[in-house]
Amino acid sequence: MSNSGFETKDEQEPLRFISKQEAEALETELLEDYRFGKQQLIEIMGHNCAMAVTKVYPLKTLPKKQPTVLIICGPEVNGAIGLVCARNLRTYDYEPTIFYPKRSLDNMYKDLTIQCEKMDIPFLSYLPTEVQLINDAYNLVVDAVLGVEANSEEGKEPWATILGIMKQIKIPIISLDIPSDWDVEAGNTEGIKPEVLISLSAPKRCAVQFSGKHHFVAGRFLPYDIQKKFELNLPKYSGTECVVEI
Amino acid sequence: MSNSGFETKDEQEPLRFISKQEAEALETELLEDYRFGKQQLIEIMGHNCAMAVTKVYPLKTLPKKQPTVLIICGPEVNGAIGLVCARNLRTYDYEPTIFYPKRSLDNMYKDLTIQCEKMDIPFLSYLPTEVQLINDAYNLVVDAVLGVEANSEEGKEPWATILGIMKQIKIPIISLDIPSDWDVEAGNTEGIKPEVLISLSAPKRCAVQFSGKHHFVAGRFLPYDIQKKFELNLPKYSGTECVVEI
Repeated sequence: MSNSGFETKDEQEPLRFISKQEAEALETELLEDYRFGKQQLIEIMGHNCAMAVTKVYPLKTLPKKQPTVLIICGPEVNGAIGLVCARNLRTYDYEPTIFYPKRSLDNMYKDLTIQCEKMDIPFLSYLPTEVQLINDAYNLVVDAVLGVEANSEEGKEPWATILGIMKQIKIPIISLDIPSDWDVEAGNTEGIKPEVLISLSAPKRCAVQFSGKHHFVAGRFLPYDIQKKFELNLPKYSGTECVVEI
Repeated sequence: MSNSGFETKDEQEPLRFISKQEAEALETELLEDYRFGKQQLIEIMGHNCAMAVTKVYPLKTLPKKQPTVLIICGPEVNGAIGLVCARNLRTYDYEPTIFYPKRSLDNMYKDLTIQCEKMDIPFLSYLPTEVQLINDAYNLVVDAVLGVEANSEEGKEPWATILGIMKQIKIPIISLDIPSDWDVEAGNTEGIKPEVLISLSAPKRCAVQFSGKHHFVAGRFLPYDIQKKFELNLPKYSGTECVVEI
């Protein structure tokens, strides 16, 4: 058995930015053919996102006295990943605060919420409309609002107001997978401008528009045959790193 | 909100080695009160075990030409954690081979097995009785056979034969949580002698008998209130490490 399948791809083959349809097909394959569980994938991705945050913003480099991070969670999968990210950041001694205005009734989401609550992570009951309060209270904002599946939510409340506030935020924003008012493929040149983008599994088409400082891919868990089938040409992850900067 | 709860414990408070009853109570609390999912805990623990393996036996230090690792999986939770450990080691470019003679019919176990199969991890249909074949073919053996719950399995076949073979193995053995022919509390002075022990959540009483080279605790994910309630006095995990050597 050779491990050549996991070695560096030829430098000539560029990383691919996948379409919405490909992203959905990839997820279906992971769930149905490879039999990954939803809970399992959300746990892996949330952990990977927290690791990326610690790489760009190590605890000791945070400008505020307290290592506070605001995590804004949407109603679907991206929000669940945000909850896991928050829980992991807490174990790394960050002080996450969660804003999760539309809670899913699904048991898995409830359980992820309870885990955070029982780890004494505070939940905000509303987002301050005075943006300066956010800039002053937190070092970072994690945008776990809307992912691949939720673009139709954008114009709806409370998301329209929340995205409006997020556009004015001056502290760094870390977006999970898709910046939240961007289209998965077309992006949004007028949208929020995250400093960090963490592409889950593989970068989506919109990521070509990303002009922030750090773009990570969190897809080391992806079986090689899937990477090959979707011609992802992912960069080599070093050592035991679960994310790679591109 | 202070993060002092996560800081170093007073050096005077020794790490506790918990009883079987405490281990069961801790697990029940994680599942029922903190609402962790079984799939979620198994994923976290399997990942942590793979990380510990990479720390003691980095890819480049393995004596054999191929980075082979044999993972022996039992019928219950320890075996499932072994499957996740194997999958993670594969993504770190190790070449795991799995021996999993008594497969659970539970869907979660089946899914974890399929994930490994579809990542081209070979499964052995039997364990060579000629121990030299194991010593020659693999760099390491991961003992994921019997955990806290499965001591009654020890005397039964195929486990009695497998444990007999494992006792003769000369390459390093890494035991997950409880070395497989040890009692959770009393240990077993005549039992297998792992070079590495990875205690999951917290060390069990038997671990006082461990005389191998490296003892890790994989319990960073444990909510602080649980650590406090069970007076675990866990050592400080550095940076974003998920395991700590004690």
